[in-house]
Amino acid sequence: MDKTCPTNSSEIFKKTGGGRFVGILMDVEALSSFLEREFPQVNAHGMAFTVTDAGAGFASMRLDPMDRHLRPGGTVSGPTLFALADLTAYVAILAQIGPVALAVTTNLNINFLRKPELGPIDATAKLLKLGKRLAVVDIFMTSAVNGELVAHATSTYSIPPQA
Amino acid sequence: MDKTCPTNSSEIFKKTGGGRFVGILMDVEALSSFLEREFPQVNAHGMAFTVTDAGAGFASMRLDPMDRHLRPGGTVSGPTLFALADLTAYVAILAQIGPVALAVTTNLNINFLRKPELGPIDATAKLLKLGKRLAVVDIFMTSAVNGELVAHATSTYSIPPQA
Amino acid sequence: MDKTCPTNSSEIFKKTGGGRFVGILMDVEALSSFLEREFPQVNAHGMAFTVTDAGAGFASMRLDPMDRHLRPGGTVSGPTLFALADLTAYVAILAQIGPVALAVTTNLNINFLRKPELGPIDATAKLLKLGKRLAVVDIFMTSAVNGELVAHATSTYSIPPQA
Amino acid sequence: MDKTCPTNSSEIFKKTGGGRFVGILMDVEALSSFLEREFPQVNAHGMAFTVTDAGAGFASMRLDPMDRHLRPGGTVSGPTLFALADLTAYVAILAQIGPVALAVTTNLNINFLRKPELGPIDATAKLLKLGKRLAVVDIFMTSAVNGELVAHATSTYSIPPQA
Repeated sequence: MDKTCPTNSSEIFKKTGGGRFVGILMDVEALSSFLEREFPQVNAHGMAFTVTDAGAGFASMRLDPMDRHLRPGGTVSGPTLFALADLTAYVAILAQIGPVALAVTTNLNINFLRKPELGPIDATAKLLKLGKRLAVVDIFMTSAVNGELVAHATSTYSIPPQA
Repeated sequence: MDKTCPTNSSEIFKKTGGGRFVGILMDVEALSSFLEREFPQVNAHGMAFTVTDAGAGFASMRLDPMDRHLRPGGTVSGPTLFALADLTAYVAILAQIGPVALAVTTNLNINFLRKPELGPIDATAKLLKLGKRLAVVDIFMTSAVNGELVAHATSTYSIPPQA
Repeated sequence: MDKTCPTNSSEIFKKTGGGRFVGILMDVEALSSFLEREFPQVNAHGMAFTVTDAGAGFASMRLDPMDRHLRPGGTVSGPTLFALADLTAYVAILAQIGPVALAVTTNLNINFLRKPELGPIDATAKLLKLGKRLAVVDIFMTSAVNGELVAHATSTYSIPPQA
Repeated sequence: MDKTCPTNSSEIFKKTGGGRFVGILMDVEALSSFLEREFPQVNAHGMAFTVTDAGAGFASMRLDPMDRHLRPGGTVSGPTLFALADLTAYVAILAQIGPVALAVTTNLNINFLRKPELGPIDATAKLLKLGKRLAVVDIFMTSAVNGELVAHATSTYSIPPQA
């Protein structure tokens, strides 16, 4: 582990909870290709959800909101933030265990903290636990416009036996 | 309170937790008009979300899923069930306090219980608490195809001071 | 199913969500003996937690709060309501699958709705899902003094493979 | 902000989410005195819960478990971890807004990740939001024996108007 100081949340995750994980099975390119192939509906109407980072125990995505992700008044809708949290957590698990298994969301708890500014939202998902049967993930969502935390989620995934 | 036996969950809600609430300020027709006027984006691409029932302390909605609500394999997506839960809870609050206030979702916890059959989903939201500042709502979502419970959520809304 | 009208929440549970479950493997007496034998610490300092009902898909317990369960001002503490919710849910699972397996709590989400009156608290736990690997339970807690709902919880249990 | 690298979670919190908060109104000593005076029941039977750190946007506590906090097999009980999470979050709010207001827990969602080793548990609570009416807090609990994350919680507090 190098001695330089983490300068963003992804870096910090690598050094803390993420530090328990060594290496990943899929990088940003592999994750992006997998999503495009297996979940074409995610970006069916334009490139809204992009994998931006992945490392031991974490992954990051950016949402570039389109009209259908907005509420009147120009804020990103609740279901869109839910989708961003769920997808980023799924990608963090995938990075770690590879494209073998199909993890299924069993629980997601989300707190909406501030009305997001109109603009991209960055999400970082960190694996709190990756067991044989269950994965638990912590997700932070911040506005790319002003850096403010707009929502936080914790979610659980059931990992099928064959994984 | 009459002596006939409740035959569905809405009826049961009227008799239990809902029993603390007396009357409503908006009925199914008023709620539908309000949604159409204030949240046109909800059904912008076809009539997917419909208010089906409302009474003291509860409201029900039906989702008739369209292509964009589905995952490959023909199941309703997580964000769509999230949207259904959140909207039904919002409508239950609206029925009780009227169109004055703009309640804001602060927390939503959802458990995905079974992969839903392809077809409509019925949601019933029951007010667990309706305070001056916070409302807490319990939401059950069942498949209209086989009656099975597919998801359950609990959510919290902040009610603005002017309400 | 008889035609008489449910008069309390346990009765209602039997007729709705609980209706999917047929029979139980442990009744109130068997559950009480099991708790006394396997979890002596629960009532180590006096009979505070009592199993009061059990049926297909649900169980009920009563808390008779003692000094150590109270906060200054005479209200039941948060950790005590947490313990009541968790224990009642565990008992509901036990009633259904018998004393074979050791279910482990993986998630509990609790909403505190009203400051409870000083006095007993009744909890009813209903199985929302009982799968091979996961059980999800809904728990309502009401004051036995005035019947008001004081807290609501949803919890998830991991069921070990040998179950 | 200095350039040295954070070496523990409290340090990291100061540099990230905690960075939005400037200074605190109560330090470790003031928080400890307040707890002792206002919540004597917390440590009524021995010094189990100790405030160990406090800073802009966060606080840390240590649990030194006593017999009554344990389950058979020597693990810390669920209600005890709940109490630790809730208390640490409360202390983090108190540090920031001072002893004026009485924040009330409205929601707590906890994930149990690993069976803790017998020994002290360290908790750090970080303010995700501190609004006029609501505070949302993220809490990480790790075993002091092996540094493993044993539980994670997110909780919400209602702050009374006079605050």
